[in-house]
Amino acid sequence: MRPPFRVIPGSITAPQGFHAAGVFCDIKRLGTGKGSEKGQKRDLAILFSRVPAAVAGLFTTNQICAAPVRVSLPRAQQPMAQAVVLNSGNANACTGRRGLLDAQAMTRMVAQRLGLPDRSVLVCSTGRIGVPMPMANVKRGIQAAADLLGNGPENGHHLAEAIMTSDTRPKEVAIELKLGGKPVCIAGVAKGAGMIQPGMSPSGERPPVVPLHATMLALITTDAAIDPPWLKTALANSVASSFNRITIDGDMSTNDSVIALANGLAGNAHLTGADGPGRSRDSAVFQAALDFVCLELAKMMVRDGEGVSRFVTVKVFGARSYAEADAAARAVANSALVKTSWCGGDPNWGRILDALGYSAAKVVEEKVDMGYSLPDGKKVLYSLKGGQPTATSFKTLCTLVARPEFDLHIHLHLGKSNAVVYTADLTEAYVDFNKGSVGDPSAMGG
Amino acid sequence: MRPPFRVIPGSITAPQGFHAAGVFCDIKRLGTGKGSEKGQKRDLAILFSRVPAAVAGLFTTNQICAAPVRVSLPRAQQPMAQAVVLNSGNANACTGRRGLLDAQAMTRMVAQRLGLPDRSVLVCSTGRIGVPMPMANVKRGIQAAADLLGNGPENGHHLAEAIMTSDTRPKEVAIELKLGGKPVCIAGVAKGAGMIQPGMSPSGERPPVVPLHATMLALITTDAAIDPPWLKTALANSVASSFNRITIDGDMSTNDSVIALANGLAGNAHLTGADGPGRSRDSAVFQAALDFVCLELAKMMVRDGEGVSRFVTVKVFGARSYAEADAAARAVANSALVKTSWCGGDPNWGRILDALGYSAAKVVEEKVDMGYSLPDGKKVLYSLKGGQPTATSFKTLCTLVARPEFDLHIHLHLGKSNAVVYTADLTEAYVDFNKGSVGDPSAMGG
Repeated sequence: MRPPFRVIPGSITAPQGFHAAGVFCDIKRLGTGKGSEKGQKRDLAILFSRVPAAVAGLFTTNQICAAPVRVSLPRAQQPMAQAVVLNSGNANACTGRRGLLDAQAMTRMVAQRLGLPDRSVLVCSTGRIGVPMPMANVKRGIQAAADLLGNGPENGHHLAEAIMTSDTRPKEVAIELKLGGKPVCIAGVAKGAGMIQPGMSPSGERPPVVPLHATMLALITTDAAIDPPWLKTALANSVASSFNRITIDGDMSTNDSVIALANGLAGNAHLTGADGPGRSRDSAVFQAALDFVCLELAKMMVRDGEGVSRFVTVKVFGARSYAEADAAARAVANSALVKTSWCGGDPNWGRILDALGYSAAKVVEEKVDMGYSLPDGKKVLYSLKGGQPTATSFKTLCTLVARPEFDLHIHLHLGKSNAVVYTADLTEAYVDFNKGSVGDPSAMGG
Repeated sequence: MRPPFRVIPGSITAPQGFHAAGVFCDIKRLGTGKGSEKGQKRDLAILFSRVPAAVAGLFTTNQICAAPVRVSLPRAQQPMAQAVVLNSGNANACTGRRGLLDAQAMTRMVAQRLGLPDRSVLVCSTGRIGVPMPMANVKRGIQAAADLLGNGPENGHHLAEAIMTSDTRPKEVAIELKLGGKPVCIAGVAKGAGMIQPGMSPSGERPPVVPLHATMLALITTDAAIDPPWLKTALANSVASSFNRITIDGDMSTNDSVIALANGLAGNAHLTGADGPGRSRDSAVFQAALDFVCLELAKMMVRDGEGVSRFVTVKVFGARSYAEADAAARAVANSALVKTSWCGGDPNWGRILDALGYSAAKVVEEKVDMGYSLPDGKKVLYSLKGGQPTATSFKTLCTLVARPEFDLHIHLHLGKSNAVVYTADLTEAYVDFNKGSVGDPSAMGG
């Protein structure tokens, strides 16, 4: 099914009734920290829905889990919420009891300012680990942001900027679709860059297939009317095929969070996932649209990963089980030797076969086919068939792997399970960025 | 117990009755390939024991397992063997049925030349994956090496050079001890550098704790008299606490092999591991000495790993089980973000805590202590106690992490199990080395 939606300009404020603001309040304590200093990247933002919205959230399964995650997780399990406060520059992770009180205080400040109950406000943080939140600055930021709330595209852009850390550009997408004849909008914003291999769940319990390891934050807004339980299901479905399928460096963060708010102002018939006989067409259309928004944001993260020069889609086919297909794809996507070979534009099948061999997936050398294609996946140039090199020339393969984006196809021929992982190369720029951190606390990312 | 042995100069030929040779026969097909061309690194070697020797071997548990491993594994399960043929420049991995025939032919050539049965000869290869062995060159090399066999130190050095790939220096150690009043010698040689996280077993079956991922080759020679079953046990014990405890890049090779030969020429009373009441003292002394030889070689590999600037011993204490202690240590040792922080001399505890949190080990943030020490491990400077930063200054910690070698101490305080992993930083030099491989087939290492 080709989903009947179209990409539109705009940001998180594109759906009806969503207001946003982003300000600079010097959370990193770079300088004097007086309000929105000129030339400083914004570091605190608020998202607000005019009316209570169905809420859903997925959070890191890292056992070292930051204070904002501990505060937001139970609130995302409620049916409704109405605002999110977000900051970069400080992850509020590994900050003990004080951190928890600070995260709660952030939500309370927003709630009081906007006239909401505390529990209707969620919180997301990213940045330095192990440093107390500079609460005086945060308070000033929250007051300034609350005064600036608005629903223009620039308001959404300010929020997108405020959550960036090592990101080189903001990540935003908005789409429009029709549900029961009513125009509906879904929008999303995200940040990524490093410590990226999310493994998020709605409960903090690890899913059966445990993705290993980002700080990534993402917010989804929509004016669709959705029953809260089904929004939770739909978001979990979309995250499973997007954010939880990416890995930049194999490190799962303490702060990964995806939060969706659906405020119903579009006036469509409530989506429940199963209205009428079987699954309703509208719910299916919404799911496909939400999948698209999440996958677009997830891919933007990989493309803008720290030091990334190549975006690679690793597709494993024919594993004995989904868990094995996933393990095989992640072993390849996280192998230092495979990632450095891509950095050099080298279609090195030996290292890929080696990584498959030490993965937790069953692999039989004599059965493995391997090849590269353009991202459209149509014409695959095979380097290996049945574990043996094909006649495809090394030069021909090089022309594909020299491109900034390509797909790797691996067929194990042992079963019917497939998995896809979106990943990137490992470059000297990644090492340089992440080593250049002595004395720069911002690099202790979470 | 301080083992009563002393390090002596010399190589793999130091124990009585071992002869070696290493030659250049152009396995990479760099040039015309006429015998030992001047200035070319040797690439083929033979080790030969004058008399049949007890044999033991451990091999990669990678499912993609090279032809020489398939040939040597069953032969190492025999009681006795007498020679090993080794080469660099070509791993003979992923080479199908032809590769298996070539590996068998290599042992047959040596056997015929030395008047041995084929099954008394083992084979090890390292280098390019997926390329047929240049058997004409190999044959010439085997003939030349067999003619040059000798028991001088230079003969051992030539073997050490012949197995080097990206190693910048040969790795050799020899020690002398007394068993029942008789002088006994144990010597070892190894190569490492990249694709290093061995997980070797004597049977190809993965051990209960599966180390993830090298090509490393090591040979151990001794003139001690040892019952073959106990040599197999003793070598497995030593490998478990040495080669299987290192990781450079988290990639397990297709060719990892450790082979020990014990020819009995020292004339000591046969070691059986359990002679007399309980375990005999002599067996315990031998085990400690073998442990030392294997650990020295393993550490040399890490120190000479591709691009390595720092050697780090990760010590995890107080896990609920050994499997969890191991998982915690490996998560830290293989984290791209932790490794790059070390490259920058940054005592970044946030990234380490993050890696612990996504490991398969149970971790409770509020219980974790973390600190650094010199390699002697005596004075630990703690950066975290009970999950919270200590008063130890960042600068003080930096002076330790700026050193080329240090220990990281992690206490989980959840149980009684401990584990150690020897690892290294991740540097731009590693990336540069491993990406700079397009068109250089030698980099497709196995």
